[in-house]
Amino acid sequence: MDLTALARANPDHWSKATAIRALTLDAVAAANSGHSGMPMGMADVATVLFEKHLKFDAANPLWPDRDRFILSAGHGSMLIYSLLHLTGYEQFPIEELKNFRQMGARTAGHPENFLADAIETTTGPLGQGIANSVGFAMAEEMLRAQYGAKVVDHHTYVIAGDGCLMEGVSQEAITLAGRHKLSKLIVMWDNNNITIDGPVTLSDNTDQVARFKAAQWHVIEIDGHNPDEIDAALTEAKATDLPTMIACKTHIALGHAAQDTSKGHGALTDADQMAEAKKAYGWTTGPFEVPADVKSAWEEIGKRGADTRRDWEERFDKMPRAKRETFNRALALDAPKKMSATVKAFKKQITESAPKMATRAASEKALEVLNPILPETVGGSADLTGSNNTKTSDLGVFDVDNRGGRYVYWGIREHGMAAAMNGMALHGGIRPYGGTFMCFTDYARPSMRLAALMQIPTAFVMTHDSIGLGEDGPTHQPVEHLAISRATPNTYVFRPADAVETAEAWEIAFTSKTTPSVLSLTRQGLPTVRLEHKNNNLTEKGAYVLADAEGKRQVILIATGSEVHVALAARDLLQAEGIGTRVVSMPCMELFAAQDEAYRKRVLPGGAVRVGVEAGMRQGWDQWLFGERGKYGKADFVGMDRFGASAPAEELFERFGFTAENVAQKAKALL
Amino acid sequence: MDLTALARANPDHWSKATAIRALTLDAVAAANSGHSGMPMGMADVATVLFEKHLKFDAANPLWPDRDRFILSAGHGSMLIYSLLHLTGYEQFPIEELKNFRQMGARTAGHPENFLADAIETTTGPLGQGIANSVGFAMAEEMLRAQYGAKVVDHHTYVIAGDGCLMEGVSQEAITLAGRHKLSKLIVMWDNNNITIDGPVTLSDNTDQVARFKAAQWHVIEIDGHNPDEIDAALTEAKATDLPTMIACKTHIALGHAAQDTSKGHGALTDADQMAEAKKAYGWTTGPFEVPADVKSAWEEIGKRGADTRRDWEERFDKMPRAKRETFNRALALDAPKKMSATVKAFKKQITESAPKMATRAASEKALEVLNPILPETVGGSADLTGSNNTKTSDLGVFDVDNRGGRYVYWGIREHGMAAAMNGMALHGGIRPYGGTFMCFTDYARPSMRLAALMQIPTAFVMTHDSIGLGEDGPTHQPVEHLAISRATPNTYVFRPADAVETAEAWEIAFTSKTTPSVLSLTRQGLPTVRLEHKNNNLTEKGAYVLADAEGKRQVILIATGSEVHVALAARDLLQAEGIGTRVVSMPCMELFAAQDEAYRKRVLPGGAVRVGVEAGMRQGWDQWLFGERGKYGKADFVGMDRFGASAPAEELFERFGFTAENVAQKAKALL
Repeated sequence: MDLTALARANPDHWSKATAIRALTLDAVAAANSGHSGMPMGMADVATVLFEKHLKFDAANPLWPDRDRFILSAGHGSMLIYSLLHLTGYEQFPIEELKNFRQMGARTAGHPENFLADAIETTTGPLGQGIANSVGFAMAEEMLRAQYGAKVVDHHTYVIAGDGCLMEGVSQEAITLAGRHKLSKLIVMWDNNNITIDGPVTLSDNTDQVARFKAAQWHVIEIDGHNPDEIDAALTEAKATDLPTMIACKTHIALGHAAQDTSKGHGALTDADQMAEAKKAYGWTTGPFEVPADVKSAWEEIGKRGADTRRDWEERFDKMPRAKRETFNRALALDAPKKMSATVKAFKKQITESAPKMATRAASEKALEVLNPILPETVGGSADLTGSNNTKTSDLGVFDVDNRGGRYVYWGIREHGMAAAMNGMALHGGIRPYGGTFMCFTDYARPSMRLAALMQIPTAFVMTHDSIGLGEDGPTHQPVEHLAISRATPNTYVFRPADAVETAEAWEIAFTSKTTPSVLSLTRQGLPTVRLEHKNNNLTEKGAYVLADAEGKRQVILIATGSEVHVALAARDLLQAEGIGTRVVSMPCMELFAAQDEAYRKRVLPGGAVRVGVEAGMRQGWDQWLFGERGKYGKADFVGMDRFGASAPAEELFERFGFTAENVAQKAKALL
Repeated sequence: MDLTALARANPDHWSKATAIRALTLDAVAAANSGHSGMPMGMADVATVLFEKHLKFDAANPLWPDRDRFILSAGHGSMLIYSLLHLTGYEQFPIEELKNFRQMGARTAGHPENFLADAIETTTGPLGQGIANSVGFAMAEEMLRAQYGAKVVDHHTYVIAGDGCLMEGVSQEAITLAGRHKLSKLIVMWDNNNITIDGPVTLSDNTDQVARFKAAQWHVIEIDGHNPDEIDAALTEAKATDLPTMIACKTHIALGHAAQDTSKGHGALTDADQMAEAKKAYGWTTGPFEVPADVKSAWEEIGKRGADTRRDWEERFDKMPRAKRETFNRALALDAPKKMSATVKAFKKQITESAPKMATRAASEKALEVLNPILPETVGGSADLTGSNNTKTSDLGVFDVDNRGGRYVYWGIREHGMAAAMNGMALHGGIRPYGGTFMCFTDYARPSMRLAALMQIPTAFVMTHDSIGLGEDGPTHQPVEHLAISRATPNTYVFRPADAVETAEAWEIAFTSKTTPSVLSLTRQGLPTVRLEHKNNNLTEKGAYVLADAEGKRQVILIATGSEVHVALAARDLLQAEGIGTRVVSMPCMELFAAQDEAYRKRVLPGGAVRVGVEAGMRQGWDQWLFGERGKYGKADFVGMDRFGASAPAEELFERFGFTAENVAQKAKALL
């Protein structure tokens, strides 16, 4: 590349873009790790975007109607950190850039939404950002339909690399966006033909332009170093009624000795080569120094949106008070006042009628009463609507001609659904929940983990939660998936025993602000086990005494979900033999672990043998079976230690020992 | 559809295809569950494929040079069961069809490779079959290059539905196939425009033809009920030098009242509607009865390949004996004779030189000596070759013009890589291994689970296995992933402590026949801890005494991988205070659990406090900390209970307590 010509053609642009490149080189060198090439390659695109198109106000990073900027190629984090510093975000003084990738810095190796207001989502695992962006853009459409274009009217801009586009989830994302004509979604593809292993062509020869067109996108191809072309493309993108992909032909590590090579992808820390690159840029200041005029030009850009924001605030204040309150409440993730009473009434009605019902059906019933009082909920399913019981009567279906619809037919895209739900939650104003079979936790895992890491309350409705699904067989029968979700930090895993616990789980999921929920629900019918009405949400305690021992307590049976009624039946057998038996229902291990020691000991006191019962792997159970550190009793576990099988559910439960007789027998063997 | 016209146009074809439809209806009705519509819709395509194109011999389901038939839309399992019964496979008498979805039957809800010889892969989780098929086709190319077209020359045929094509993994699969011009891969898309939630257009409007063309496929569009068009398309597909997608326009549940509806996707069990459908087909026999002439026509098809197979055997027998032996050994997954000596020599050399080395680097060194003696290994990485250390000097790179290459640049496609590796293993003759960062276990999970369920020895090389990867931060730092893989039945999870254990892990992985392996390897350097050479493979025991207590044994430290040397240092501190301390290295919990009780007790005797040390979640550890059922001691665990952070690795280990001082302190607190 002839850098001199580039600089001469657009000197103001060039100096601004160069500031990004220089800061990137400096920060990566200081950290002695990181990824230099991508920010250097995409600096021109990002500069034009921030200077001329992105609606933002650096002084108000959380302004609700800002455009969203998503760096899907998260390894290029110095691009966003540079931009946030240069435009004057308070959370990004130059010290943050000097501490790139150091303990406690906001400038983590990959952008982390929970470290800074202006970072919309956590990226790095490739494809996540572009898949999140679909949820961002859907949320914008939904909220615009709900509150009007005067208060909700913004774009979602994404920078994605070849890695993002090679990941399968990108296909799920772009086909969703194309299907729903998410015209305010604009993806800028960093088309640099380089991956870590070498040129893209080493592993891929996809015609990306044709691929996006096949997914019903508008596509524009430009030189990613030509500011006029970038500007024109962004203008055109905003004018179309389709989502737009701008293929930006760029040079990774522009101007560096490693330009256009896979070496350029990584940390470019060689001092001489850095000096040469800066010289070629015409950049003469020291490390982390930005010439005052360049910094001030960038800061002007950071203030560019201030008036627009003020105008927005005026318009917002003119909205009817009730609407404003709902808007703010949803944004703050506060529960509506009616929530508690609604759940209590629902529970009371269940306790009184004591239906036999699958917890997936109970979940639908709970959602039927909750969705009407929570206009921020958005439901959906990955093509299992009738099986996941996620659609309630009042939601309406989100579509091109019905943006106010609150139900999404996600198609057979578990991963894309999970990532887009995360995007909705991150956008704000929406509480997403979506369903698939629990076994397909596997497909959604990358985004489920990120929900936990990002501290957002996405709710994953995982039905058909054990061998109890029967004939579909081991490909569809989760056995390790409770353990998988429980092993993940900051995740509530609910396995409710009946409709009462299911409603309690939903109450927690829909009041959670920083923790995602997994609702593990049965296909098969279960009896109601909570036959005494309690106003309190007992699931909130994680575990509680469902039926206490009569006489001397010799056995404690601990069970979850569909095995709770088995434990109750086992208790009947044991009590009939004069063996005092307590049954503890444990719908959420994480919440039980969070209780104080006194409560935990009250529920699980010493002096009795313990048997855990759950149609899943034992992993994670031993802490409850063997008590707190240093105080142990005799214990056993009735669970799965292998994959299931294809057969009717009742036969499988019998075959794998989930019977009252077997549980009672295991308990007696310990006495 | 005018069924009479269809029947009249091709009466012989019609009766054969109708046999599939009728058996499907009968089996689903008998099971009262299953999926009728897909086999009924694709019966014509499958009939023409089996009658005129598929190279197979029903009497020899495992004939190595057979064409592979993969039912990616696995819910339509009655299609393959019908075909296997009709063509006379011994394992599929009519009784199996009558027992569809019942306990112990081969006719599980979804096709399971481990239940019957002729089922090439386990499908049901959508997209897996089409992604496996890329590995099947690559394996064929590789083996053809290795053994010649006289003994390896077959096609891979796939039936995929809309669900398969909507799943992201299908994009990874088809772009791989396009990049590598896998011309012997032929995908028949069941284009019926129906998913469970409704018409495909409810959730998707992708132009699949354009999409496949963008991925460099040859595409043919046909009427999926016209046998002539089907035949011509298959002929054309075999003649191109690109992978081919045949878009077969079909009617789901053809001829049934539920035709062309999402109801048709499921179990069609209404007796009257079944009778009407059969009447419309002109099918007059009772349930599970196939007219003798139709059955005999199908059986002729089943024998069609017998001569071809005999000719192949003659050609095979003419191959040089050494080649034949290698071919058969690889197919049988037997280890070469040199394996044991090679590993021993490697271990001896390591013990003597005692290098400080990351286990990912140790893995490369082990592979450098193993790959040359195992011509069946195929390595690869999802665009992290230099980081995963998976490429050794002698492999060569698999490419269009180098089919003998044994290294695959998989691109940024963790899921596609895992699924294709499974396909290679299922094809036979290949031992695949492939790498990514351990955190991206999440992306590969659906296929890693299936490797375990399918009982195939795929090896997953998961480097950067903890916070020890440092600055890339929590998006890239696994904390729950050891627990995730350990929770999965039939999976070896190796976390070797040094180069000796790494080589031992590879020896086990490369001799395993029915269990996949996960090798969890460090980014950072580790000291050699096995300083005394042992010919025996100690990792095979799962855990062993690495350093015993001097004096009275008061403490047992149990550690894995990068924490073993920390435990040894903690032992030094404790012994210096006169506290007798044993260190147990536990590179594979699953193998330790499989030892007899006497050995487990020898390694982990009572009478001492125990501290586990591993930079991961505690889940799965309590069984070792608290001993066998009924015998418990005091114990503690030094691990992670949250996500990591972005900072240099040494600081993170210090911050999270992985220091000799902290471990010694925890042990002392228990005394």
